[in-house]
Amino acid sequence: MSTFVIESTRSGFVESFHVVSVAVVSAESTLVAAAGDPDRVTFWRSAAKPFQSLPLVQDGAADRYGFGPRELALACASHSSEPVHRALAMQMLRASGCEENQLACGPHPSLSQAVAEEALRAGVALTPRWNNCSGKHAGMLALARHHGWDPTGYASAGHPVQERIQDEIAKWTGLPRDALVKGVDGCLAVCFGLPLRAMATAWARFGISEDPAARRLREAMLAHPDLVAGKGRACTDLMTAFQGEAVVKIGAEGVYCAALPRARLGVALKVEDGDARCAAPALLTVLRFVAEQQGIPLPMTGLEHHAEPRLFNTRGEVVGSLRTAGSLGFA
Amino acid sequence: MSTFVIESTRSGFVESFHVVSVAVVSAESTLVAAAGDPDRVTFWRSAAKPFQSLPLVQDGAADRYGFGPRELALACASHSSEPVHRALAMQMLRASGCEENQLACGPHPSLSQAVAEEALRAGVALTPRWNNCSGKHAGMLALARHHGWDPTGYASAGHPVQERIQDEIAKWTGLPRDALVKGVDGCLAVCFGLPLRAMATAWARFGISEDPAARRLREAMLAHPDLVAGKGRACTDLMTAFQGEAVVKIGAEGVYCAALPRARLGVALKVEDGDARCAAPALLTVLRFVAEQQGIPLPMTGLEHHAEPRLFNTRGEVVGSLRTAGSLGFA
Repeated sequence: MSTFVIESTRSGFVESFHVVSVAVVSAESTLVAAAGDPDRVTFWRSAAKPFQSLPLVQDGAADRYGFGPRELALACASHSSEPVHRALAMQMLRASGCEENQLACGPHPSLSQAVAEEALRAGVALTPRWNNCSGKHAGMLALARHHGWDPTGYASAGHPVQERIQDEIAKWTGLPRDALVKGVDGCLAVCFGLPLRAMATAWARFGISEDPAARRLREAMLAHPDLVAGKGRACTDLMTAFQGEAVVKIGAEGVYCAALPRARLGVALKVEDGDARCAAPALLTVLRFVAEQQGIPLPMTGLEHHAEPRLFNTRGEVVGSLRTAGSLGFA
Repeated sequence: MSTFVIESTRSGFVESFHVVSVAVVSAESTLVAAAGDPDRVTFWRSAAKPFQSLPLVQDGAADRYGFGPRELALACASHSSEPVHRALAMQMLRASGCEENQLACGPHPSLSQAVAEEALRAGVALTPRWNNCSGKHAGMLALARHHGWDPTGYASAGHPVQERIQDEIAKWTGLPRDALVKGVDGCLAVCFGLPLRAMATAWARFGISEDPAARRLREAMLAHPDLVAGKGRACTDLMTAFQGEAVVKIGAEGVYCAALPRARLGVALKVEDGDARCAAPALLTVLRFVAEQQGIPLPMTGLEHHAEPRLFNTRGEVVGSLRTAGSLGFA
């Protein structure tokens, strides 16, 4: 099996390294390329959000509450708690007749350091809308409202909202419903554990699906990459640069997934130690490799700092970087 | 070779894992126990500070400028920028006739989240005294002053201060001077790259040395663990709990070193991916193992949260922990 790592360098020497497992899979679930253990089971975390949002669209809740591309992009987002993200989450709640205090997720400092520091300086009391998953949760609450389900416990295993989502996850990954490991995500919603290969299968299908709900979510993410993450964040910058050639979504603990519709492929990777900084460099290396092999265009302009993030000392001088080593192998 | 990992769990399932290399070595450089690659070469980072501080004491600078156990503890510290740490660093500078703007290190937010947030809320402009290495740098400046060396560039390779330190590092590790990899640390001082086994040898020797300078530094660290790190930090809590049975010092990027004087052993470990959260759990597992094998006392009361740090969701509920798996092997 090919070994694929992200090396952390200092003064030209490899100081630390991060092992990455990768699965590149066709929509028919054929493994095209891999590194490490493509059958590695881990939690999908936020890279599952497009699939967690499918019932919201399919069941008619999105239409009923007037959720357009912006709201759907936010439902799939791990946003930076920028003012636009918080306002949109509140708008989704209002539209479905819900209140912020019904959100199961707790607050946390913004994933954007600038936004987090501004909030701290201003003495803002963080509330659940600040959670990077508040759009997903607003969507789950809207789904419960739409079906007339008691929203209490909407984020927990066993609630109809989560049962409905689990059905979709099973369908898109091709896994038996009971094969999905269930855990509690950082935002308190159910998160699903499954092999990277199955995640990649779902993403390959998501990239080319003609299912109207999948199509709307995919197009929403591509139309509003600024709402899927935030200023300077990888998902936003990558989808902006790729000009529709790839849909990407990061997850916590080193997970990153992508769809390459033109190649009909899906990608899922896991930085084995969960390092969040290494996920984007790993994904960009995989996407460049696959694009070259498949002969498809994938504009990479302006993504150099995501492909090889520089490391600085306390005087702001570059001391090293996070760089890819090793290679993907063909399956 | 034994495999030793820190597992990151979520809902009872292993989500991510961190591989750890360990060397447990006698003062005679005999490998007693190991995991992963005990010959792994990496940067010693701040776990080298006691050795970087030896010339300060040996050459008479500490005595000349009135540096007692508190100042020497701070010279060996990666402190939390608490008021006491900043004040002591300034006092060291004043005593040797230096100014804060001569410190080569840049500022950074405190390693203590509470201190960092307080500074941000208060709108404090961070200056070099805030750097966790400001005590080490104040000591280096004092050494330059004492010898009448031009302090310009005192932190950089080639300056007499760094040459003098490199001699000591070579002596204590038993490595040829030229075998030491040289890099630039986060604080801009020279950092040294060498095998874990050599780091552990130096620590074993440091723990039992009758060299007056080593003894003074060792006793300073043991007498003032609050100055070596800070409130709630691992080095402070561990040395407080151990009641003189171990000297410990963390380094950046997952390095942790320790001396167990009663067993005449030194420990050096590296979390291969550099995860700082995993270093203390790994060290505590190694120390417990060694103490049991050697039949020496090592009080562990109150260290449970360092041995297995809990992981929380955004509502503050426990979702998992960082726990040790695998084992050390005897060499």
